[in-house]
Amino acid sequence: MSIRPKLSRRAQAIPASPIRKLVPYALAAKKRGVHVYHLNIGQPDLPTIPAGLTALREFKPEVIKYGLSQGDHALTDALIKYYSSLGYKFEPEQIVVTTGGSEAISFAMMAIADEGDEFIIPEPFYTNYNGFAITSGVRLVPITTTPETGYSCPSAEQVSEKITDRTRGIIINSPGNPTGAVYSREDMERIAALAQEHNLYVISDEVYREFTFDGVRAVSILDIEGMEERAVVIDSISKRYSACGARIGCVMSRNGNLMEAVLRYAQARLCPPALGQVVAAAAYNDESDYIEESRLEYQRRRDVVFNRLQGLDGVVCKKPKGAFYCLAKIPVDDVESFCKWMLTDYQREGSTVMTAPGPGFYATPGLGGEEIRIAYVLGCEQLEAAMDCLIDGIKAYNNR
Amino acid sequence: MSIRPKLSRRAQAIPASPIRKLVPYALAAKKRGVHVYHLNIGQPDLPTIPAGLTALREFKPEVIKYGLSQGDHALTDALIKYYSSLGYKFEPEQIVVTTGGSEAISFAMMAIADEGDEFIIPEPFYTNYNGFAITSGVRLVPITTTPETGYSCPSAEQVSEKITDRTRGIIINSPGNPTGAVYSREDMERIAALAQEHNLYVISDEVYREFTFDGVRAVSILDIEGMEERAVVIDSISKRYSACGARIGCVMSRNGNLMEAVLRYAQARLCPPALGQVVAAAAYNDESDYIEESRLEYQRRRDVVFNRLQGLDGVVCKKPKGAFYCLAKIPVDDVESFCKWMLTDYQREGSTVMTAPGPGFYATPGLGGEEIRIAYVLGCEQLEAAMDCLIDGIKAYNNR
Repeated sequence: MSIRPKLSRRAQAIPASPIRKLVPYALAAKKRGVHVYHLNIGQPDLPTIPAGLTALREFKPEVIKYGLSQGDHALTDALIKYYSSLGYKFEPEQIVVTTGGSEAISFAMMAIADEGDEFIIPEPFYTNYNGFAITSGVRLVPITTTPETGYSCPSAEQVSEKITDRTRGIIINSPGNPTGAVYSREDMERIAALAQEHNLYVISDEVYREFTFDGVRAVSILDIEGMEERAVVIDSISKRYSACGARIGCVMSRNGNLMEAVLRYAQARLCPPALGQVVAAAAYNDESDYIEESRLEYQRRRDVVFNRLQGLDGVVCKKPKGAFYCLAKIPVDDVESFCKWMLTDYQREGSTVMTAPGPGFYATPGLGGEEIRIAYVLGCEQLEAAMDCLIDGIKAYNNR
Repeated sequence: MSIRPKLSRRAQAIPASPIRKLVPYALAAKKRGVHVYHLNIGQPDLPTIPAGLTALREFKPEVIKYGLSQGDHALTDALIKYYSSLGYKFEPEQIVVTTGGSEAISFAMMAIADEGDEFIIPEPFYTNYNGFAITSGVRLVPITTTPETGYSCPSAEQVSEKITDRTRGIIINSPGNPTGAVYSREDMERIAALAQEHNLYVISDEVYREFTFDGVRAVSILDIEGMEERAVVIDSISKRYSACGARIGCVMSRNGNLMEAVLRYAQARLCPPALGQVVAAAAYNDESDYIEESRLEYQRRRDVVFNRLQGLDGVVCKKPKGAFYCLAKIPVDDVESFCKWMLTDYQREGSTVMTAPGPGFYATPGLGGEEIRIAYVLGCEQLEAAMDCLIDGIKAYNNR
């Protein structure tokens, strides 16, 4: 009998998605007839932007051809127009359209860092950054932020003490997933100054840019002067236009050398998806109030979730200022066990709720064990019912 | 003034696409009013499979959502049905749908090989394998095959002498791009035996499976016994159904550990494109004679190209048995210079022809300088006219 062929070490190091690992228990609950409120993933329930769906219906190609590696002109033109409406001027060669924000992050990391190089990143952070980092052999060096401060932006000292001769950049994500934190202008200037002082890039994931609440406005890394060579923006239509499955994002930077490198990575995979680009171009050209309506809806939902949590003893949660997540410390001993128990042992009037356990969002082992992420991707009425379940469930879990 | 931030070494090592680098000269020729016959890229002109286009028109989602990381059930079911019709039984967990064959190759390489590990590959080979290899830090170790033999499959000795303790697999592509070569059952058995003897994987890129001529049938790595743990199949709808822009491919293997690793890579990028999957599922479920008609059309075109080349002194070209490429040694001193000259200095009755220079398909420096790849992606009448240009162009170039 022949020896069994081995896998690569890096393949063995890639974690399974911590957000998706409770899925089998949710499926089993549904089989038992229990309704599951899904607050566990960042899949908006809002309809995809109508202009995008109309464009798709009207797209009648004879051949679905390869497009340009950097993205089709219709989409890059629409992106330039959208960014111009925000006050940022871009040239076509400063944009590479990607297969979702995922590919954008991965191209940016690989263009900047070699195996063993480091990015500093505030934790908790978007889980999938870990996957991209392992895939590209890059180390993510976390700076822990806490629920008590609303996961506020790290201080200059906190960042500085993590900088080594392998540090190549700082990754930020404001408005943030999973925290809902929005960094102030001072925060962005502090990060930018550190990047300039230590010759680092700043990769700024701005996919939730428009979703900010109570008059707060997200500050882009593009707003900070002197960052032309260092700022790399990650963007995506997934959340903004509720088109996660279209898989369209982009990398943008004024650093010409960097964008040339990103383009060569893009050429290696030929082109981004043609059909998603049709949706995206129409979305970016749209002049309706779709985004503003989405923003207001998320703000109403944030209020529902936050107000309900405030009533609870032992909850630590500052009011989220953006995105559509609430990360809250809740009074249970072990959230992994709690989130699973809610699916396997709990129901209230035939329903339960699925949330994402905190540890999956931390790189530092042992952290996040008292936090859950609530994605408010259901309408207010359903959210109220889901919060009834969650709050009752916490009590029931502690009395079990 | 601050220091300019550097790029990664790997970003600097990624080559620009050798196939696309003549594009500016083609654009300039068109600006001068010269018609360019494009035989330089593998973009079929045949209409996308009608069933796929119909399914796309009928797809009316409210939300374009994230799908499963391994691909949506409708598509994996259709893939299972298609493979079953070819005589191969697959289970859903043995398939991961990818963003084109490109991502499939890249997942397979990364699941098997760490940085510095090696794959043996007959050259000339599909240019973009190079990009994926550099991205993943893997070395491609070429075995040179030649036009004189029709780029026939390397011997056991040729493969064996390339095997080192870093070798993790052999990559094959039959029917082949750019060669048009189709490996026999004996060839596949020889490769499989070497893989078993040396504990290697075989990554078999079978995207051109159906496009074989003169009664030749492509042998799949799946036809070879004892390869369950070692065979990894790369597939794609791009060429089979003329849907390159849909960006849908897949990785398939009976090796459960390998597929688990591939799935974890797939989770890191969330999901493959939803809209392309709609096209792909309908394509794989289609029972029309679309593929057979495409095959016959490519065979007619192969005959046009091959017959015209045969008449030329100094041409070396065995009759291609599959895919839709002809790689031919032509009597010019330097094909890079020739292909460019055809765009910058030549025209015949207002037309010229663009082909892909051979060196881009070789990993060994200095090889391929007398070969061009002709992609027969135009109808027979246009191909005749393009071959008139090419043959006249070779004479004119040598008399210039």
